[in-house]
Amino acid sequence: MATAAESAGVIARVAVDSVETIEAAHRAGVGDVIIDVDVGMPRCGARPDHAGQLADVARQRRLSVSGVMGYEGHLQMVSDRSEAKERVAEAMSLLRAAHDDVGGDIVSTGGTGTHDLHTIGLDHPTGVTDVQAGSYVMVDTQYATLNQGFEQALTIVGTVIAHHGSRYVIDVGLKALGMDHGDPSIDDCKIWFCSDEHTTFSSSERTFHIGERVHVRPAHVDPTIARHEELWIIDDGEVIDRWPIDLRHW
Amino acid sequence: MATAAESAGVIARVAVDSVETIEAAHRAGVGDVIIDVDVGMPRCGARPDHAGQLADVARQRRLSVSGVMGYEGHLQMVSDRSEAKERVAEAMSLLRAAHDDVGGDIVSTGGTGTHDLHTIGLDHPTGVTDVQAGSYVMVDTQYATLNQGFEQALTIVGTVIAHHGSRYVIDVGLKALGMDHGDPSIDDCKIWFCSDEHTTFSSSERTFHIGERVHVRPAHVDPTIARHEELWIIDDGEVIDRWPIDLRHW
Repeated sequence: MATAAESAGVIARVAVDSVETIEAAHRAGVGDVIIDVDVGMPRCGARPDHAGQLADVARQRRLSVSGVMGYEGHLQMVSDRSEAKERVAEAMSLLRAAHDDVGGDIVSTGGTGTHDLHTIGLDHPTGVTDVQAGSYVMVDTQYATLNQGFEQALTIVGTVIAHHGSRYVIDVGLKALGMDHGDPSIDDCKIWFCSDEHTTFSSSERTFHIGERVHVRPAHVDPTIARHEELWIIDDGEVIDRWPIDLRHW
Repeated sequence: MATAAESAGVIARVAVDSVETIEAAHRAGVGDVIIDVDVGMPRCGARPDHAGQLADVARQRRLSVSGVMGYEGHLQMVSDRSEAKERVAEAMSLLRAAHDDVGGDIVSTGGTGTHDLHTIGLDHPTGVTDVQAGSYVMVDTQYATLNQGFEQALTIVGTVIAHHGSRYVIDVGLKALGMDHGDPSIDDCKIWFCSDEHTTFSSSERTFHIGERVHVRPAHVDPTIARHEELWIIDDGEVIDRWPIDLRHW
């Protein structure tokens, strides 16, 4: 019997890394899985030498197994590129070994911080078929330190509501920002601190008046975007579109 | 002419701390303002010696002036109570001086971290009429360090999705948590790190199985609540109500 997803012509593919998650996928009517492999970041992912057995379990449950994924998240911020290249190659050797046991067309990995270290194709050094980079589209102040040449496209627009000499307060605070990578930035300004609904900053280079709009650059794009209802798309100073943020309710 | 708020029998009172914000309140049809006074926290608030002049400006615009507020937010986490008492008294002497110039019935201040240092009434030591404590209802891991005896009532419910020996991963991460005060806590567990949608932790005291629910205590309640759609109210293990979170869209 076709699942709802199959009937709609959609491939719903789910990452699994244990017998329990395979059984949950099976119960939920998922038809296609990928084995998540731990390549060095202590989060989800099966041990590389266990991946093949999990693929067997999945196939016994009549699930299709499309390949492996293993995110080298612990290497995204290694700024020395020769060190990063070497450590990514080591991580990918784990993922390729798991893929030898699992089979399937997909060997998926990677992020914005390592995208340049992969050459797509199973016959290439890191041997992957997919790089899952996404943050490069927006870039935050942390990724910007890698100097990869991507533009910081995302800002939160605040309004100046108070000032005292060179010290200003805007109506953007903790409720609008992902703070796990620290304070946000404002061009030519020094951030003092963020409060629930405010940020206090000063500037010796710029002056602002009450009511003026200020662009705040978040330190981490992903959890910042999840705080908001819509992205406003701006081209050359003009709002050209508004996109709802549909995966915000975590 | 009555404003919409007045016609509905609602007093819409707005804090102002500058001529610009008084004029904005006036343009918006607000009838009643309170003068926000800087009592030592570098955020909003007029200089204490400027508050009286602002009250005059507001009254010239035919706004009612109900009093003053001055939040001593910089003193909420002073753990030495005799030091806290002394510094709160100093901050309140600034607020009372401003109130002498402004007039009105309200002298408002305070938070959970200082609520015990105020005695309500203009003839009492700190001389305030309102204490704005709110976090005590929920309490987070930061406020809990003050040992004020309030129960930590707020948790985020996660589900275990992976484990590797004594290391576990749940589906609660940065998108569900206010992180400006650091990592959340789980009873009897050691938090390793939070990712966008996951938290990795370990425990030498408890074991968990995949699918098990885990209660995560946030480090800062306010921005954590703002990440969610609803509060689920639980009494003795039973869900007795669900409350929408209406001020989440900042």
